[in-house]
Amino acid sequence: MTALKSNGERLWQSLMAIGEIGHVDVKGSKVGGCHRLALSEKDLRGRQLFIDWCQTEGCTLRVDAIGNLFLRRPGRDNNLAPVVTGSHLDTQPTGGKFDGIYGVLSGLEAIRTLNEHKVETERPIEVAVWTNEEGARFKPAMLGSGVFAGVFTLEEALAQTDIDGITVAEALALSNYTTDSQTRTPIHRYFELHIEQGPVLEANKIDVGIVSGVLGMRWYRVHVSGQSCHAGPSPMEMRNDALVGSAKMISELTEMAAAGSASTRCTIGELDIPSASVNVSPGEVVFSLDLREASDDALEALEQKAKALIHALADARNLRVSIEQFWGLPASPFDADAIGEITAAAGECLAAEKSMTLVSGAGHDAVYINRIAPTAMIFVPSENGLSHNEKEYTAPEQLAKGCDLLLNTLLKAANS
Amino acid sequence: MTALKSNGERLWQSLMAIGEIGHVDVKGSKVGGCHRLALSEKDLRGRQLFIDWCQTEGCTLRVDAIGNLFLRRPGRDNNLAPVVTGSHLDTQPTGGKFDGIYGVLSGLEAIRTLNEHKVETERPIEVAVWTNEEGARFKPAMLGSGVFAGVFTLEEALAQTDIDGITVAEALALSNYTTDSQTRTPIHRYFELHIEQGPVLEANKIDVGIVSGVLGMRWYRVHVSGQSCHAGPSPMEMRNDALVGSAKMISELTEMAAAGSASTRCTIGELDIPSASVNVSPGEVVFSLDLREASDDALEALEQKAKALIHALADARNLRVSIEQFWGLPASPFDADAIGEITAAAGECLAAEKSMTLVSGAGHDAVYINRIAPTAMIFVPSENGLSHNEKEYTAPEQLAKGCDLLLNTLLKAANS
Repeated sequence: MTALKSNGERLWQSLMAIGEIGHVDVKGSKVGGCHRLALSEKDLRGRQLFIDWCQTEGCTLRVDAIGNLFLRRPGRDNNLAPVVTGSHLDTQPTGGKFDGIYGVLSGLEAIRTLNEHKVETERPIEVAVWTNEEGARFKPAMLGSGVFAGVFTLEEALAQTDIDGITVAEALALSNYTTDSQTRTPIHRYFELHIEQGPVLEANKIDVGIVSGVLGMRWYRVHVSGQSCHAGPSPMEMRNDALVGSAKMISELTEMAAAGSASTRCTIGELDIPSASVNVSPGEVVFSLDLREASDDALEALEQKAKALIHALADARNLRVSIEQFWGLPASPFDADAIGEITAAAGECLAAEKSMTLVSGAGHDAVYINRIAPTAMIFVPSENGLSHNEKEYTAPEQLAKGCDLLLNTLLKAANS
Repeated sequence: MTALKSNGERLWQSLMAIGEIGHVDVKGSKVGGCHRLALSEKDLRGRQLFIDWCQTEGCTLRVDAIGNLFLRRPGRDNNLAPVVTGSHLDTQPTGGKFDGIYGVLSGLEAIRTLNEHKVETERPIEVAVWTNEEGARFKPAMLGSGVFAGVFTLEEALAQTDIDGITVAEALALSNYTTDSQTRTPIHRYFELHIEQGPVLEANKIDVGIVSGVLGMRWYRVHVSGQSCHAGPSPMEMRNDALVGSAKMISELTEMAAAGSASTRCTIGELDIPSASVNVSPGEVVFSLDLREASDDALEALEQKAKALIHALADARNLRVSIEQFWGLPASPFDADAIGEITAAAGECLAAEKSMTLVSGAGHDAVYINRIAPTAMIFVPSENGLSHNEKEYTAPEQLAKGCDLLLNTLLKAANS
């Protein structure tokens, strides 16, 4: 079977056209940034443009109760559960033109290519636009896919407010969508195409990544207590400095993670010294710890290792320490069959050395959909690993390769 | 010659009496804290009580233009420059009853003892109370002794304002002092007795410390820049984390200082991560660096070593770094003759194993007076090394030993 080829030029034009809605001129950005917060007037305009494009291709629209859009290209047997692809159209306040949008428009490009080639599929194919993925306007992130997957109730999601006190329900009402009351419909397979948001593919000169899952993550607050003292009168050997102890912990925790597996992550992103003063050796330090691993077992083992390391360093320095977890998300290994279908399609449309398997460290709508349907993801490189950034960029020819793989994967799954 | 002995009980009673002015009840503090900001109504009451006590002993009062008090016990030849001792009566907002106050009241106790024993001295003896040593109400610290030594002009000092916009000149006017226009008078020797504010004497079970000088100090701001990235998508080996680099610098800088001389100090008291977020590997870190050494040459060498270390660690991690000095004070080695007089007096009033020579890491009025007159200091232990703290405490019998040494030193110097 010869692989179908999408139209990379058409995909790029669509991306740039929808990116005009909320476009921000940014020095040093190749195509400019995008400001299109979830369910804002701009987001609604972007969604409408997308709906129009899909309807031109003969797709039907369904909007569920949380505002997720489903654009359906019928199959030969419309009683079969659809193969779904998609992502989101909303952006961060200083976002780019690819994060989320690329996945949605590649679904459209796949449909356009199938129509052009008059290719029918057994199952219907749907492109989903999930509401408020970014979490920038309404908390939490991945709200629409979370409601669809039953992670949040519809009622709690509709009641979330933005910074001006406007609820999701009020913002949705402005859209004039004809919603149905359903919050979940059967899905045969869910595939999400996304820019990597990290440096791995670019560094390895790889065109597409087959994503084996999303890392589980746990966030902790580590409190380290010693005894503060004046910088002058206290000889070095008589100090009980919480920052010097914390520095050692930070060094050894990150070294431990670097010696771990390819999916081990350890990040200290916040560090606070209460009552800090230039001439006081700190008696108190609080830092955050973000641990990630590919499976919940591996994450648990990483946590135990990190805790043992922190306690051993504290004991050796006569410091007191407490470690408190304040957030977490289980690991989300993707479906083996779905991964297998992407891998098979990649074998047909790409040279073998141009793809690799990797994990996603960031969350995506696919994490929640993975709880209710066989799911996998495809990544393309993002320049300098940037995302949530107005300089976010992936070259048209790389976007086209990812789109080709999505197209052939959808085709394969929709005929299975 | 037999050493004179002061009255430790009387010294303690005076300390507790003046400490009633501004007394603060504090749980866990043996005698309570003290709140007596410079030239406040409470400070003026404390000063008046002290003046009254001295005048009862036959001392005369002179107040200079910045409000420094000089209480003089005449000598046989009052044309000779006086031997001066003293310190300050103001406290930190949450201060104790010993820092500064002990030095002033020990001068009074020395005079009381000399009067009791009808001992005349060749030179006059003066007890000085320096204005605004703490720097808690008016900036900078050591304002009165600084003006006396010519470090600050009288005009700039009088124009300093507190948090309510009240100037030093206005605060002084409320005192009704009859000031003279002089800002400097000759001093034969200056001795200052103080609590250590550090842990060295207590840890070594030593009664009195003979202070060989005050450490020079330099303050720097170190900016470390890498590249921020998301905690999830970036494998450990692809990161350019400014905090991990800074942690290594903090560890190695403090280890380098610990391997230095007994007077080497290195403190990182402030650390800031701009735009910190739990799930972002930091691209920027700014930390303070406080370096101290006993001589300016040693301090310069320490700075060079610290800079080389920071740059080497930055280079090895592909981090950019800038190091900017924003404050400094030269080292202040004390006068050999003045130290010799304390040492000789110690030989007469203390068992040899009960004293040691040490450096002061904190600034004192003696640092500025040392610039214009032969100066040295005496320390007594402070419990747990605490000061600028409401739990500051030194036991009466240890205070008495320090006072004895001051008394015999003054006697020796005033007859030389």
